[in-house]
Amino acid sequence: MKPDPRYLLGKPVRDRILSEVQSMTGAAGRIGKLVSISIGDIPEVAVYVRNQARAAALAGLPFDQEFWGGEVGQDECKARIQAMNDDPDVLGIILQRPVPDHINVRSLQSAIHPLKDVEGMNPASIGNIVYNDVAMAPCTAAAAVELIRETGLDMKGLEVVMVGHSEIVGKPAAMMLMAEGATVTVCHHLTRSVAMHSRRADVIVVAVGKAHLIGPDMVKPGAAVIDIGINQRIHPDGSTDIVGDVDTEAVKEIAGWVTPVPGGVGPVTVAMLMRNAMRAYQRQQAAGWRT
Amino acid sequence: MKPDPRYLLGKPVRDRILSEVQSMTGAAGRIGKLVSISIGDIPEVAVYVRNQARAAALAGLPFDQEFWGGEVGQDECKARIQAMNDDPDVLGIILQRPVPDHINVRSLQSAIHPLKDVEGMNPASIGNIVYNDVAMAPCTAAAAVELIRETGLDMKGLEVVMVGHSEIVGKPAAMMLMAEGATVTVCHHLTRSVAMHSRRADVIVVAVGKAHLIGPDMVKPGAAVIDIGINQRIHPDGSTDIVGDVDTEAVKEIAGWVTPVPGGVGPVTVAMLMRNAMRAYQRQQAAGWRT
Repeated sequence: MKPDPRYLLGKPVRDRILSEVQSMTGAAGRIGKLVSISIGDIPEVAVYVRNQARAAALAGLPFDQEFWGGEVGQDECKARIQAMNDDPDVLGIILQRPVPDHINVRSLQSAIHPLKDVEGMNPASIGNIVYNDVAMAPCTAAAAVELIRETGLDMKGLEVVMVGHSEIVGKPAAMMLMAEGATVTVCHHLTRSVAMHSRRADVIVVAVGKAHLIGPDMVKPGAAVIDIGINQRIHPDGSTDIVGDVDTEAVKEIAGWVTPVPGGVGPVTVAMLMRNAMRAYQRQQAAGWRT
Repeated sequence: MKPDPRYLLGKPVRDRILSEVQSMTGAAGRIGKLVSISIGDIPEVAVYVRNQARAAALAGLPFDQEFWGGEVGQDECKARIQAMNDDPDVLGIILQRPVPDHINVRSLQSAIHPLKDVEGMNPASIGNIVYNDVAMAPCTAAAAVELIRETGLDMKGLEVVMVGHSEIVGKPAAMMLMAEGATVTVCHHLTRSVAMHSRRADVIVVAVGKAHLIGPDMVKPGAAVIDIGINQRIHPDGSTDIVGDVDTEAVKEIAGWVTPVPGGVGPVTVAMLMRNAMRAYQRQQAAGWRT
């Protein structure tokens, strides 16, 4: 059976991007390795790292996993990151989140050199997005933009409504979409009527973390709906499932496109990390760090 | 005659802020000086510098004017700025714009250390705004926010429409307003209908550079209108005047508040520069750069 064409699936987009990256890594010189840093023993981090390692293998990028004990201090973390900044064998640094409570994650993100910041989390990287330099953007925001592009809708003049204004998704995605010519409205928990905005949107991007927040009554017929939410539901019988911020099955009957959860934004996000790694390589070359 | 209360005037706001800064500079230790850098001989720059020097005097901040010849090279500019970064006598660095064509202004702005970036123009400073750290924001954006605050409107849930998405005004102002709880839409030259957005706005902020772009038909009764435009008009008889992006006289009959041009955002902008200088001092102290 053919999948419903209204599902905007992440896997084909991911595969295309990973193979683009792979064709570049094959042609590149000594490219260095991606280093993933996990601090402490946090179960959900293991899933992310596994997905990233798999994508890196497909992209032809060496991927090293470092596990730092939960007792490691802030200064020691910073010193180790700074050593990686100076190490030509390190192409990019991935700081897995969450981290233990005694670690200041923002400060560590700032310590990662912008040319090695493949997650696009350093304030300087985020600032570059404001200046329309979107080479290394936060991966989830970049994935949302990539999926909108996939619809074939012309970004120029597109009315986009972002629901959620986080630093790592909502705000950078808004900036990136403005750079492409979209008119962007950013809604959040203080917005008086999200529906007033979402109903007039050509594209809705949701990143809030509330299961089924966006129902069909909030969507304009034919709109594209990009769902960044990942919510675990526990049912009365004890079983669990993962759903997004969008009531996908109901919205699918109204929307032109809707990204499923799982299988939509997630696979593209990890591909964006690999694309950032490739861009980091190009920028390090341009800066004379690599030959 | 009492001025029309619908004019939201910049001068009282400027005076209040400069006197706040002045009471802090009076109590501070060795505070260092602001250094203004003008490159080449560009007439409009002289006006900015004069206004800044006057505001600095009122705020009790030492203000040095450096004039670099139009023939100075990029590397030499960068080296001089880096020397100022290291010079404890320098509190903050102001790079006047425009600069001659052979100078890359973005690169020089990036060379200014974030703790001395009193104009808030370094990408790292802009990135900090995305992370809700608005201590040293671009001055014009900060002035727009300050004038909205002056109306007494509650920022939480306020529907703000920005017209113009420049890096130094539209985008940072949008971020700052989101941080305050406003729902922000950013319109620009590719927006299909600016009026559709502006007519539903509680607050309109315009920074486009088109004389009288915003007329009364684009404004909701009772809205606040913040006009950042500065446009010189040349009349048939050869006389000139300065007007904003808003048809102020006509809009005044509809709006709850409108900032005049001149006399609205301009005076507040220069006061924001002095407030940023004070915050730079506090941050340099906190970082152990000053005792």
